[in-house]
Amino acid sequence: MSAIITLLTDFGTSDSYVGEVKGTLVSLAPLSQLVDLTHDIAPGDVAAASFVLGRAWRTFPAGTVHLAVVDPGVGTRRRALAAEVGGHRFVAPDNGLLSDVFAAAHAEVVSLPAPPAAGATFHGRDVFAPAAARLALGAALGELGAAVSDLVHLPPRRLRTEGRDLVGQVVHVDRFGTLVTNIPASAAAEDAPVRLGRHAIELRATFADVPPGSPVAFAGSGGTLEIAVRDGRADAALGLARGVEVRVAAR
Amino acid sequence: MSAIITLLTDFGTSDSYVGEVKGTLVSLAPLSQLVDLTHDIAPGDVAAASFVLGRAWRTFPAGTVHLAVVDPGVGTRRRALAAEVGGHRFVAPDNGLLSDVFAAAHAEVVSLPAPPAAGATFHGRDVFAPAAARLALGAALGELGAAVSDLVHLPPRRLRTEGRDLVGQVVHVDRFGTLVTNIPASAAAEDAPVRLGRHAIELRATFADVPPGSPVAFAGSGGTLEIAVRDGRADAALGLARGVEVRVAAR
Amino acid sequence: MSAIITLLTDFGTSDSYVGEVKGTLVSLAPLSQLVDLTHDIAPGDVAAASFVLGRAWRTFPAGTVHLAVVDPGVGTRRRALAAEVGGHRFVAPDNGLLSDVFAAAHAEVVSLPAPPAAGATFHGRDVFAPAAARLALGAALGELGAAVSDLVHLPPRRLRTEGRDLVGQVVHVDRFGTLVTNIPASAAAEDAPVRLGRHAIELRATFADVPPGSPVAFAGSGGTLEIAVRDGRADAALGLARGVEVRVAAR
Repeated sequence: MSAIITLLTDFGTSDSYVGEVKGTLVSLAPLSQLVDLTHDIAPGDVAAASFVLGRAWRTFPAGTVHLAVVDPGVGTRRRALAAEVGGHRFVAPDNGLLSDVFAAAHAEVVSLPAPPAAGATFHGRDVFAPAAARLALGAALGELGAAVSDLVHLPPRRLRTEGRDLVGQVVHVDRFGTLVTNIPASAAAEDAPVRLGRHAIELRATFADVPPGSPVAFAGSGGTLEIAVRDGRADAALGLARGVEVRVAAR
Repeated sequence: MSAIITLLTDFGTSDSYVGEVKGTLVSLAPLSQLVDLTHDIAPGDVAAASFVLGRAWRTFPAGTVHLAVVDPGVGTRRRALAAEVGGHRFVAPDNGLLSDVFAAAHAEVVSLPAPPAAGATFHGRDVFAPAAARLALGAALGELGAAVSDLVHLPPRRLRTEGRDLVGQVVHVDRFGTLVTNIPASAAAEDAPVRLGRHAIELRATFADVPPGSPVAFAGSGGTLEIAVRDGRADAALGLARGVEVRVAAR
Repeated sequence: MSAIITLLTDFGTSDSYVGEVKGTLVSLAPLSQLVDLTHDIAPGDVAAASFVLGRAWRTFPAGTVHLAVVDPGVGTRRRALAAEVGGHRFVAPDNGLLSDVFAAAHAEVVSLPAPPAAGATFHGRDVFAPAAARLALGAALGELGAAVSDLVHLPPRRLRTEGRDLVGQVVHVDRFGTLVTNIPASAAAEDAPVRLGRHAIELRATFADVPPGSPVAFAGSGGTLEIAVRDGRADAALGLARGVEVRVAAR
């Protein structure tokens, strides 16, 4: 058997940390197939980690093990978790990193005891990698720890209605400067602009429907509205960032 | 069977995009072996992507599938391609990304239809990854689409002669600041300097033949002339960048 | 058989170099499993490479092949090495990159002849990758070259005693700005501060034992003292970098 183990961390790629986690995984589960999702989550940015993992995990086959470590609270009493959601398995700190995963489907969750030899600062190697390896080798979730239910969640990225408007927010800014919102693309009307701050941006099918340098709103690849600037960066051009309120006249 | 699939994109490594492509690949072609070439092509830099892929693909074994997505025209009518060159298979947008590959050997090329469920903005996941997976599973090129021949090519990086000079250009600047030209190393005479702008740089066998801090021209690892500064960066030291004209007295 | 080959370089991830090394490896040793440790060692920083490799290699299983190329002297007469240490195999230039590995256990070392077709500038592809592939395929070390013993070592990161003090240094600054020292954590007394420059920093069990923004010394994940700032960067907050002297009152 050859389980896939994905890795998502904020460890960066200039230290030994990613290598130590990978070495631990292949030492304990030799036939597993390691797949890097990213190690470039901004240090401690649990919300970005939750968003990225929340999109990527669904594209993998059932049975995949996802190791996700953005862990600014390492060394505190925050719990370490293993979870099963939709046939996938996850190991991560109990700090909200799995919020987007938990929002997708029912989750079974256990709390991982720290192995006696675990240090206080590198649970990616000492706690999460051994747990991921056990899952990759076929261990049942219940073999890893006791069930828990009072989990830490990130503040929900709620949609609300105000009069006839649907109000959401920019939940992610990607490498290209595109602003990803949490407003379902299906909620936007084609004849009503998307409003962010003082900007009103027309909804189009694709980038190609506006001239280079112009902003455009469109149905993004995650199913929500996104705002881009053709051949440019929307974040810089519009002066906007994660958390900005977004408003559309609902259909 | 376990086909190798290489990945080259400009997606960067801080979003979910690379993970979504990888998940799609291993879901559809479970035994394939994913090999990251790079995800750090500058956003939309099709010429850099073509150059990097044009060097890397030849080192892989025949049968390898290369997924290459630098796709600023996604959402326009640009075509999606699958190609077979020298026993290797490629999937990429029809925007010149495969120019350096096509320059190497005869190519068979087909146009990929967009699957009905494909969005307008993420063909890496929705079009190219499924096509790469089918090729990895053994599909013949002709099963993926209809043959096409009027392909988009980057402006060719021509060499020309002027009197007794061979004139080319800097086609790539690498991580170390080394200037890679398109002048075959075999064309340079050992007693004639390489000229770039107002600089005249001596040809030597290796870095080690000049003192630290000095510029040096040499036969690069891709078979063309390169200009470096020993223990320094030639781009910064000489004030030069991609596209600069390079001139040698031909043998 | 399916040997693991790890890769550690300073090639960065925007050129073709990493891809060319990987292609060479999988062409010559098709069933090997490639594991990226890092390609983001600062250009030419042999000391950082030695430190990172010195931590990561031990976490892999015996039999792993480690390809490590940070090679500012490529093209000079520096030798190319293959080594066996603790059941692991290594290929690397003879420039001190293996210093931390050699410090761990007895090493057998051979000098690799340059293949006739090797260029003068890319021994990662032309010398080290073919040697790593041969080791991955089961070649004995002695088949690759003749034994050598007069190896290049980095200046040792010595500890010394001054009166009642143990004096070491900051040997690495990680992505989070944490200062990693070479003073064994077991050597520090809990009631004596760690001194760096004009700073005196209390030893605690974990980050969580100080308020956000405060510096803290603790036993790091590599077994030595580290200095961090909770929810911040110690290097910036304290104005310190690699090489700074660190001093503790020994137990």
